[in-house]
Amino acid sequence: MNSPVFFFVASLIVSCSYASHVQDFCVADYAAPKSPVGYACKDPAKVTVDDFIHSGLGVPSNTSNVFKFGFSAAFAFNYSGINGLGVSLGRADVEVGGVVPIHAHPGATELVVVAEGSNIIGGFIASNSKVYQKPLTKGDTMVLPQGLYHFFVNQGNTPAVIYAAFSSESPTVQLMDTSLFKNDLSSDIVAKTTLLDLAQVQKLKKLFGGTN
Amino acid sequence: MNSPVFFFVASLIVSCSYASHVQDFCVADYAAPKSPVGYACKDPAKVTVDDFIHSGLGVPSNTSNVFKFGFSAAFAFNYSGINGLGVSLGRADVEVGGVVPIHAHPGATELVVVAEGSNIIGGFIASNSKVYQKPLTKGDTMVLPQGLYHFFVNQGNTPAVIYAAFSSESPTVQLMDTSLFKNDLSSDIVAKTTLLDLAQVQKLKKLFGGTN
Amino acid sequence: MNSPVFFFVASLIVSCSYASHVQDFCVADYAAPKSPVGYACKDPAKVTVDDFIHSGLGVPSNTSNVFKFGFSAAFAFNYSGINGLGVSLGRADVEVGGVVPIHAHPGATELVVVAEGSNIIGGFIASNSKVYQKPLTKGDTMVLPQGLYHFFVNQGNTPAVIYAAFSSESPTVQLMDTSLFKNDLSSDIVAKTTLLDLAQVQKLKKLFGGTN
Amino acid sequence: MNSPVFFFVASLIVSCSYASHVQDFCVADYAAPKSPVGYACKDPAKVTVDDFIHSGLGVPSNTSNVFKFGFSAAFAFNYSGINGLGVSLGRADVEVGGVVPIHAHPGATELVVVAEGSNIIGGFIASNSKVYQKPLTKGDTMVLPQGLYHFFVNQGNTPAVIYAAFSSESPTVQLMDTSLFKNDLSSDIVAKTTLLDLAQVQKLKKLFGGTN
Amino acid sequence: MNSPVFFFVASLIVSCSYASHVQDFCVADYAAPKSPVGYACKDPAKVTVDDFIHSGLGVPSNTSNVFKFGFSAAFAFNYSGINGLGVSLGRADVEVGGVVPIHAHPGATELVVVAEGSNIIGGFIASNSKVYQKPLTKGDTMVLPQGLYHFFVNQGNTPAVIYAAFSSESPTVQLMDTSLFKNDLSSDIVAKTTLLDLAQVQKLKKLFGGTN
Amino acid sequence: MNSPVFFFVASLIVSCSYASHVQDFCVADYAAPKSPVGYACKDPAKVTVDDFIHSGLGVPSNTSNVFKFGFSAAFAFNYSGINGLGVSLGRADVEVGGVVPIHAHPGATELVVVAEGSNIIGGFIASNSKVYQKPLTKGDTMVLPQGLYHFFVNQGNTPAVIYAAFSSESPTVQLMDTSLFKNDLSSDIVAKTTLLDLAQVQKLKKLFGGTN
Repeated sequence: MNSPVFFFVASLIVSCSYASHVQDFCVADYAAPKSPVGYACKDPAKVTVDDFIHSGLGVPSNTSNVFKFGFSAAFAFNYSGINGLGVSLGRADVEVGGVVPIHAHPGATELVVVAEGSNIIGGFIASNSKVYQKPLTKGDTMVLPQGLYHFFVNQGNTPAVIYAAFSSESPTVQLMDTSLFKNDLSSDIVAKTTLLDLAQVQKLKKLFGGTN
Repeated sequence: MNSPVFFFVASLIVSCSYASHVQDFCVADYAAPKSPVGYACKDPAKVTVDDFIHSGLGVPSNTSNVFKFGFSAAFAFNYSGINGLGVSLGRADVEVGGVVPIHAHPGATELVVVAEGSNIIGGFIASNSKVYQKPLTKGDTMVLPQGLYHFFVNQGNTPAVIYAAFSSESPTVQLMDTSLFKNDLSSDIVAKTTLLDLAQVQKLKKLFGGTN
Repeated sequence: MNSPVFFFVASLIVSCSYASHVQDFCVADYAAPKSPVGYACKDPAKVTVDDFIHSGLGVPSNTSNVFKFGFSAAFAFNYSGINGLGVSLGRADVEVGGVVPIHAHPGATELVVVAEGSNIIGGFIASNSKVYQKPLTKGDTMVLPQGLYHFFVNQGNTPAVIYAAFSSESPTVQLMDTSLFKNDLSSDIVAKTTLLDLAQVQKLKKLFGGTN
Repeated sequence: MNSPVFFFVASLIVSCSYASHVQDFCVADYAAPKSPVGYACKDPAKVTVDDFIHSGLGVPSNTSNVFKFGFSAAFAFNYSGINGLGVSLGRADVEVGGVVPIHAHPGATELVVVAEGSNIIGGFIASNSKVYQKPLTKGDTMVLPQGLYHFFVNQGNTPAVIYAAFSSESPTVQLMDTSLFKNDLSSDIVAKTTLLDLAQVQKLKKLFGGTN
Repeated sequence: MNSPVFFFVASLIVSCSYASHVQDFCVADYAAPKSPVGYACKDPAKVTVDDFIHSGLGVPSNTSNVFKFGFSAAFAFNYSGINGLGVSLGRADVEVGGVVPIHAHPGATELVVVAEGSNIIGGFIASNSKVYQKPLTKGDTMVLPQGLYHFFVNQGNTPAVIYAAFSSESPTVQLMDTSLFKNDLSSDIVAKTTLLDLAQVQKLKKLFGGTN
Repeated sequence: MNSPVFFFVASLIVSCSYASHVQDFCVADYAAPKSPVGYACKDPAKVTVDDFIHSGLGVPSNTSNVFKFGFSAAFAFNYSGINGLGVSLGRADVEVGGVVPIHAHPGATELVVVAEGSNIIGGFIASNSKVYQKPLTKGDTMVLPQGLYHFFVNQGNTPAVIYAAFSSESPTVQLMDTSLFKNDLSSDIVAKTTLLDLAQVQKLKKLFGGTN
């Protein structure tokens, strides 16, 4: 290597020295204070490839419940490398005859692809109450626009495996049932603000562990 | 006025001629195709001060319903001047003993101020099911973070007047009841995905005009 | 309750365990370092309903000044719960004959509703110098697009109460007078860059407590 | 149904009449002019459930090429329902011994999950030239931060099926090879601005169909 | 070229066929309706390299006015290729003894670099009225944060040439003088809402061509 | 000063007391944890005008390398005042016969203006491989849309001075050569995923200081 090359390499180190300061990513430092847009960034010098990899979507999630449904998340709270990057993944398993209960993601659109299964009703409810629903089969994707209630019903003969992508690294979930019935909101207020019968409210409060 | 001033005024007209092209606002042209971020912009030459003013929040909204609740919106769909500007307003009236039924705004935070009334329970439900609620009185504000279910119950002795600001010019509303019961989603699916009793579902479907 | 229910509840706790990590809101921790998009988030375990409520817009603001104008803010700096949520509120009081002096909010659109009063001139100035103005009365809203100068003049016979919503939780305010006259910017530079007479500048500097 | 209910239903129709105007989604109208943030919105009255569903990720993409790699996209250009929603999906197939050639997505982070296969090297290159790479197996996810070069090499014994989620509904792709060699950029300029040997440039230009 | 290569090239054409649909840029189509975020996009097939190039910042702008200041803009209204890309440029010329009059850019931060000249006072006024000012010389940059009033005074011995970058492709400009004095806002309202003397207002209205 | 003025000034201090809390800017505190959107904010009380000024673009950058190219950055990592403001600047020098090597900025559009020089080929490559290129001369601007590869070749008779504005305060840079050749990515993987000859890869690895 001759001297121009020596200068060249030296110069690149100088002229591009800011490269070590740049922000290609912001791996979550769970110990520092969060900002409105996510976790603080870990010192890049401590970041390793393992921050960018999450394992665990390869096995079925636990479906031993009345809905026969399970979900495994690869969200920023358990996947440091996606912090600030605006996308996350999850895996839903739905047994034959099982359902994904009605819920919404306030801050994220969900886009699913059916990896295994068939005759799985996917549906969402627009804010004018119109329902968009259709049976899905392996290889189908369906989009559930941000904040809208949605559900799945496995009417097929085999368990369903669904990968779900979200337009946020930290999607939140509002499950209708747990929102109404798994807390200390008074049964009377629930009944008045939903018109559900008080007895119905109390029955489901008992099931979901709510009080009052 | 001497000639330098003449030149000055002429020059300002020239050097700032782009000012007539700029985009201080984007008043809605309801006839043109919408974009993902709102209505197209009306030709600025046709914009008048009336586009920026909305009248009608000065009188009570109609509360003749089982909730004893009414709402008047000043949203982009009926207020062309706020298109693209990220804020809107509404007025809610709640009779004594009335409620604002449980609902959420998928794409907007709501910030209310109580203009009239007292002992109005305001509450919202976080995605971990925790309830944040408290009685509000005249002059109190309460924030309902984006996408979270919320409700009000007027337990006071006078009608409540509440102004509501939204962090979007086009907030959408998902009323839990109409989402479940005012459409053609099969009662069986509603029951399965909520664990509500089928009879309860059918009763409320009848009330809200739903089918199936 | 039978065992499937037990499993069900247990499973929901497991499969939704991320719920306690999610970010429905980011209540301001005023002690931690801010980010470009707002205050850091308080530990959710320390958040209470009082973080989401602000009291004090129920009483008139102090209008004992030459403008006969007062303003009370419910902004992120004094209302922790709205941090990061993109909306805030304020209350303006304008005595009979009073004015809201010309000012702009660099990073926020303002949307007002007149709660009390009539014949209140509201106006704003577009960047091509065109003025949009009109008398407002109770129940009227007017939008002041982001960053544009605006003002109000109470030409009616009763004090005006105006609620103002902003498209930011931390709107800033640039009052023309205090920007020019309440600091140490040299009178000579003010005169040169505005063409105001030097005597006029010095007179207002004295009024507003400016120097130089 | 008694009269309060009649009033109630009537009132909801009135007070929520804006619901039919709201923007839960913005299904692409490919015929109208695009905006900087995506396609214009189709008239909601013409939207059907099929706009929200895309089929075709259930079968392998064509891998008959020197890379032994294929890709099927569910992006906004061929999936109208995701327009404006900030997320998309794709499926990559990589034969045994095949690779995903080095490329980047200028405006999107990619988050992959390995649905089938093992010992698939996934890697990306940060802007300071540091490489983050590791073998992936079924169920592993890996994130490729926005705009960074990345690649995969299937070193396992079975074909790989990879689902890829993107933080944009319209991710673009810059394949290094086609950028350099599949166009009319002069070989001399390519050589000078990359330091590749001219003969190497000409050889690959020939392979990729470039000219000059 | 042998057959694998043939297949390869064919396959790349197929698997990457969406590339012709993607949105690397959105060159302005001035004839179509604008959206809140900018001009509609010209058909990519009609885009040429000339859309991405703007000429004219190489010569001084006209400074024949009382401020001895001129400005040439390369903004989206006259530079189609930057539409939607969030950055623009301008060139300011300030004669010896000249000034850039006080103004603000409601929706954009400005970042200047002095290309020619010395002893040019640059300053901006924060919303708490604090002034940040300093003499600048060739090669200095100064940032004028979004929406804040700023000004320049050429106290040096040579004409100043300043390149200005903006964080928006369509920055708007609010010149304090023209906002107050170059329109039909009544002199009485200007005086009341600024506390300027009526005679001062009328004098400058005359200078700037305002009425009332 | 009479008493109304006293009250006035006092009142402004009170009613505008939030002004000292507002966020006109967020000067970088390099010692505190970063967020996904930039550095934390320095205490405003410690901010001085020097935070908003960067010096050093007035002199040529070092061009003693094989590309005959140098670059000086005024980016957030070395210019605290632009943190969070979405714009930055740089200066590129290109000797006669020199080039700016092919590179891309993953998160920023670049907009250049030629301050000195002529016959400088500027070009970028769209994601469908189409090249947009043209000779530039003094006063010309050219936009390089976000994330797209671009280059310059000085074919003129004088050194080129180019100011570059970026739509981000922290643009990152992916230089094609250093990405491929200045790290420990195995030569075999580089060859397989680019189709470059192994000998070519090894030659450039040696030049750029890469290994493996």
